Amino acid sequence: MKIAVFGTGNVGETLGSKLVELGHEVKMGSRTANNEKALAWVKKAGAKASTGTFADAAKFGELIINATLGAGTIEAFKMAGAENSAGKVILDLSNPLDFSKGMPPSLFISNTDSLGEALQREFPKARVVKALNTMWCGLMVNPRQLGESHHAFVAGNDPAAKEAVKQLLQGFGWKPEELLDVGDITAARATESVLPIWLRLYGTMKTGAFNLKVVR
Amino acid sequence: MKIAVFGTGNVGETLGSKLVELGHEVKMGSRTANNEKALAWVKKAGAKASTGTFADAAKFGELIINATLGAGTIEAFKMAGAENSAGKVILDLSNPLDFSKGMPPSLFISNTDSLGEALQREFPKARVVKALNTMWCGLMVNPRQLGESHHAFVAGNDPAAKEAVKQLLQGFGWKPEELLDVGDITAARATESVLPIWLRLYGTMKTGAFNLKVVR
Repeated sequence: MKIAVFGTGNVGETLGSKLVELGHEVKMGSRTANNEKALAWVKKAGAKASTGTFADAAKFGELIINATLGAGTIEAFKMAGAENSAGKVILDLSNPLDFSKGMPPSLFISNTDSLGEALQREFPKARVVKALNTMWCGLMVNPRQLGESHHAFVAGNDPAAKEAVKQLLQGFGWKPEELLDVGDITAARATESVLPIWLRLYGTMKTGAFNLKVVR
Repeated sequence: MKIAVFGTGNVGETLGSKLVELGHEVKMGSRTANNEKALAWVKKAGAKASTGTFADAAKFGELIINATLGAGTIEAFKMAGAENSAGKVILDLSNPLDFSKGMPPSLFISNTDSLGEALQREFPKARVVKALNTMWCGLMVNPRQLGESHHAFVAGNDPAAKEAVKQLLQGFGWKPEELLDVGDITAARATESVLPIWLRLYGTMKTGAFNLKVVR
């Protein structure tokens, strides 16, 4: 599949590399066509990797993965052009982290709204699916590295878009029963609210290699 | 031990009954000395159970369990009199749930503050420990009913108070390694923020008999 990855940070690179490894064609999008980190990634990732502006990547991708910082998410999709995400699945990995008030970060949207909802509102023709935002990127693409089963939450308004994301995640090694559908995009309020406890656990455990499991 | 339980709802009754069963003396506190639900509980729970006002209960208890609704928590402790909670451990089970904006409820304090912190600020001489607020009350007192291990988060400023709470929880059947210390009382922001995902999961699973496990 042709996939756009927005964001040149650790999350974007981890997702992009895994997707290329799985045989997908990946265009990493950023503000400029000649972003140094994106170019370095392309050199490393090989023939199926390419880079361009957010607009270039969005045009290229049949599916768009948002791995930008939460604070830059809406602007990135504006720069991409609404027409280039219309009808497409956006897998939104981002969190509305606010680092301006010290560590651990707080959330700049929360409780009665979420970044996932804001993105869907701003781009009503896109099909936003919030997923994988509750864990370290190393686990997103390699869920089997933990000793036992654990869960990813999936939220979005479009059932077919959620199914497409679930298929993609199964390619990463997720088992179908580990992908918990928590409802429409308003459930992004709930999954983005996982960040505060994630950050506290990260602070005490000193590793990102952990995740939540819903035990029944 | 002599224990005060604030609150006559399902959570207070469940905790109170378990504590009596374990041999503790329990006084259930409410706004009035002759609360009907509290009197009915005493009749059921037996000789080690009693009831009274919040002040009566706080005076009686060596440890106070807050099982009031979040919206009534601060007021309940004001009614109890600050002098009656001074120096005592308060095990705070409450959540700042706001039901005024529809279901699922939102939080009336969140993100950069928490109800646990508000309680500690308002009663600086009390030793507030936030714990067990991330699960259904049936699980709080009977953690072994699930098929495998799961976790409770413990937050508070006073190490000895946290240790006292951990001892009490072990009496309910919690294993020491299931009690995760997540830091000082500011970590109540994180554990109270678990409620949104808990509520979504409750909505899809139609049972409260589940909990989160931190998988490494």
